[in-house]
Amino acid sequence: MDVKELYKKKDDFYGKKVTLEGWIRNHRKQKEFGFIDFSDGTCFSHVQIVYDQSLSNFEEITKLMVGSAIKIEGILQKSEGKGQEFEIKLLSYELLGDCPKECPLQPKRHSNEFLREIAYLRPRANLFQAVFRVRSVAAYAIHKYFHKRGYLYFHAPLITASDCEGAGEMFQVTTLDLNQVAKTGKVDYAKDFYGKKAGLTVSGQLEAETFAMAFKKVYTFGPTFRAENSNTKTHASEFWMIEPEIAFCDLEQLMDIMEDFLKYIVSYVLKHAKEEMDFFDRYVEKGLKDKLNKLLESKFTKVTHEEVITILKNANVSWEFPPEYGEDIAKEHEKYITDYFQGPVFITNWPKDIKAFYMKQNSDQKTVAAVDLEVPGAGELMGGSQREENYEKLIKRMEELHLNKEEMQWYLDLRRFGGCTHSGFGMGFERLLIYLTGVENIRDVIPYPRTPGNCEF
Amino acid sequence: MDVKELYKKKDDFYGKKVTLEGWIRNHRKQKEFGFIDFSDGTCFSHVQIVYDQSLSNFEEITKLMVGSAIKIEGILQKSEGKGQEFEIKLLSYELLGDCPKECPLQPKRHSNEFLREIAYLRPRANLFQAVFRVRSVAAYAIHKYFHKRGYLYFHAPLITASDCEGAGEMFQVTTLDLNQVAKTGKVDYAKDFYGKKAGLTVSGQLEAETFAMAFKKVYTFGPTFRAENSNTKTHASEFWMIEPEIAFCDLEQLMDIMEDFLKYIVSYVLKHAKEEMDFFDRYVEKGLKDKLNKLLESKFTKVTHEEVITILKNANVSWEFPPEYGEDIAKEHEKYITDYFQGPVFITNWPKDIKAFYMKQNSDQKTVAAVDLEVPGAGELMGGSQREENYEKLIKRMEELHLNKEEMQWYLDLRRFGGCTHSGFGMGFERLLIYLTGVENIRDVIPYPRTPGNCEF
Repeated sequence: MDVKELYKKKDDFYGKKVTLEGWIRNHRKQKEFGFIDFSDGTCFSHVQIVYDQSLSNFEEITKLMVGSAIKIEGILQKSEGKGQEFEIKLLSYELLGDCPKECPLQPKRHSNEFLREIAYLRPRANLFQAVFRVRSVAAYAIHKYFHKRGYLYFHAPLITASDCEGAGEMFQVTTLDLNQVAKTGKVDYAKDFYGKKAGLTVSGQLEAETFAMAFKKVYTFGPTFRAENSNTKTHASEFWMIEPEIAFCDLEQLMDIMEDFLKYIVSYVLKHAKEEMDFFDRYVEKGLKDKLNKLLESKFTKVTHEEVITILKNANVSWEFPPEYGEDIAKEHEKYITDYFQGPVFITNWPKDIKAFYMKQNSDQKTVAAVDLEVPGAGELMGGSQREENYEKLIKRMEELHLNKEEMQWYLDLRRFGGCTHSGFGMGFERLLIYLTGVENIRDVIPYPRTPGNCEF
Repeated sequence: MDVKELYKKKDDFYGKKVTLEGWIRNHRKQKEFGFIDFSDGTCFSHVQIVYDQSLSNFEEITKLMVGSAIKIEGILQKSEGKGQEFEIKLLSYELLGDCPKECPLQPKRHSNEFLREIAYLRPRANLFQAVFRVRSVAAYAIHKYFHKRGYLYFHAPLITASDCEGAGEMFQVTTLDLNQVAKTGKVDYAKDFYGKKAGLTVSGQLEAETFAMAFKKVYTFGPTFRAENSNTKTHASEFWMIEPEIAFCDLEQLMDIMEDFLKYIVSYVLKHAKEEMDFFDRYVEKGLKDKLNKLLESKFTKVTHEEVITILKNANVSWEFPPEYGEDIAKEHEKYITDYFQGPVFITNWPKDIKAFYMKQNSDQKTVAAVDLEVPGAGELMGGSQREENYEKLIKRMEELHLNKEEMQWYLDLRRFGGCTHSGFGMGFERLLIYLTGVENIRDVIPYPRTPGNCEF
């Protein structure tokens, strides 16, 4: 039986014999009795196992090491101790896998930095039990949200020969033998696996658009890559992204979907990972649950980029980065704006020169129908846009930016063959997890994070 | 409103005005009236839109091109024609995006080969509407199956510096400038993104084991890569895989999970993609639904590899590849065995020399606790094993196979620190889709397939 199941059905088992398999997370022994803190990882709660001298192998049991895998049989009974509703009175046990003292994970406070070095053991620690269970619950919530609303789950290709968006930040993928390249002094892409230069995608959006033109509502949820040499708390070179794309949907409708989607996920995780969220609230970010509940209750504000700059310029603040019309905003501005509106803010109609080529050009000739969602305590959590559906305007923009039109003819052709108003947004999954858990470093919400110089396990 | 919603709530809308946005999939016009075959891609069923000369713009409407995006208003009414329950009597329309004749996708029979060349348009064709909707439904079923049973969804890393399993079949991932490598004649991995040679993973299993040792039941569902230069109907260089890993689970229990899992997915898809499955049954593989229903009713047989070879040797068949104890079996053998047992067959206890290093060594010193599931009409659909949990045996096996122990110390250490009996299996998602849809070529169940020489879109 799983511990999770036992918690659900405990009332059926009081006074009865139960069998569990799992690990010793802590062990307190006294002269005449002992307590084993037991977990099988199926839920955040542990089970207390009590034993006493009446067992013939009492001495042997007291020697069981923290971290060991054991199978136990015992009687479920109400607990008289504090901190747990029930406990199991041990009848017998079997040692399945010992855990010697040299195990680097011990039942004490380790730093997150140290735990990263033993990433293969850290999921056994409380913090990571909570983090990765929330990661799993949130992923399920995302699939459920879209599935129930009729979206098609679209698997975007990861290896791509197009570098339209990723110039300079793409990993190259090759089967050429680099030593051979060095030896011969020649790079012959005709001999590479795909017969040309290929790399890892930075976004599945362009391909998702082709599916939105056939299924109306689609979403991607998969890995994406950035070969960006940034060693910050929020950058990883491999991360998961969610990119919905919706036909017959303009920027206004898109913002409604973004708000509804985010509230659904937050609410789902609060409800379905209750213990984990309590843990984060208590030990990781005080006030986390208040922050999330406040988000659920707030109506998101919609303002234009121009209005935001005006507000920032009028603010009585000495900015590190002075705000400017036509320019991007900095972290300090994001924070000011969400404080100013006391809640999440959609910033729309961004200067076209700082946004991507595919965004719909507004009639002012200066801005595009893009939107960033700024969330208190998270900064920019999602970004999206209405896509340019006008063939001529899109071509002209690609020419201005010296993008390869021939390579992108299929993308352009979506505008020639039954094109329509359509919009989409992207959300980095790890950015959401940082927001949901209060954990600050992206390295701690990815099972095996990849960052410059780090590709362990 | 989505067409899917209209089908569900049609009884509420008879005689009422409805508004739809979507695409013209076919258009028959006669002198006094016309029929538009309309779809918005939210479900397999189309909607028939009828119009007649009473509309002042009748002539204009007759000129609407197949493939165009339109918005229509009309009255929902019972249909007198055959083939549909209801139709919409057109009141007005708006052309959202025209579709000129040069659109390469036309309402006629195209070959699958041609459709691959226009993969950005093929999701609009009936076959691919069905294929990719089943892909999405099956993916959801997989997440649902594991989630409901308490499995943790684990995102395995895709970029890896370990090549334990993938020797020779791995793509290399690099940020080194190949032209620079050619020019200088030097490969300096210290300057590569991760400071060492890295590649794309061929399996997330080893990392999944680390999480099973913390969460008991986990699964991966993500992309994997093979740089294998095979141009066959069943090989792609980028595909999605499902890899569950379960602690405190032996080979017998694993087979029960494999059977239960497969039956759940097949049953879910039959139920939730009814129209699509009818379509495949009628146009792609006659008898498909019978095949799948038979699987649901059958109890899977369990036999050892040795027993299988004996059966094959005793068969009155002149084999192209003569069966041998200690060797792998061929496609012709797989087919014979599922025919012989008239249903799915688990083949267990494989010769250790043809299986992976991490599989549990049986006491006969010759075989390992591995299992392949052979399914009528699909061949090998899943493969799994109990994992070797004995540290010394695992080390010895790695030494015999000249594998890098130092690099894999973390994997070995799982056996030192609270190790236990554990098992897992893998299933190629596309192989399942080929089985579920009857579509023969893996290139036709992946949105943008990657194969040797092919990396388009």
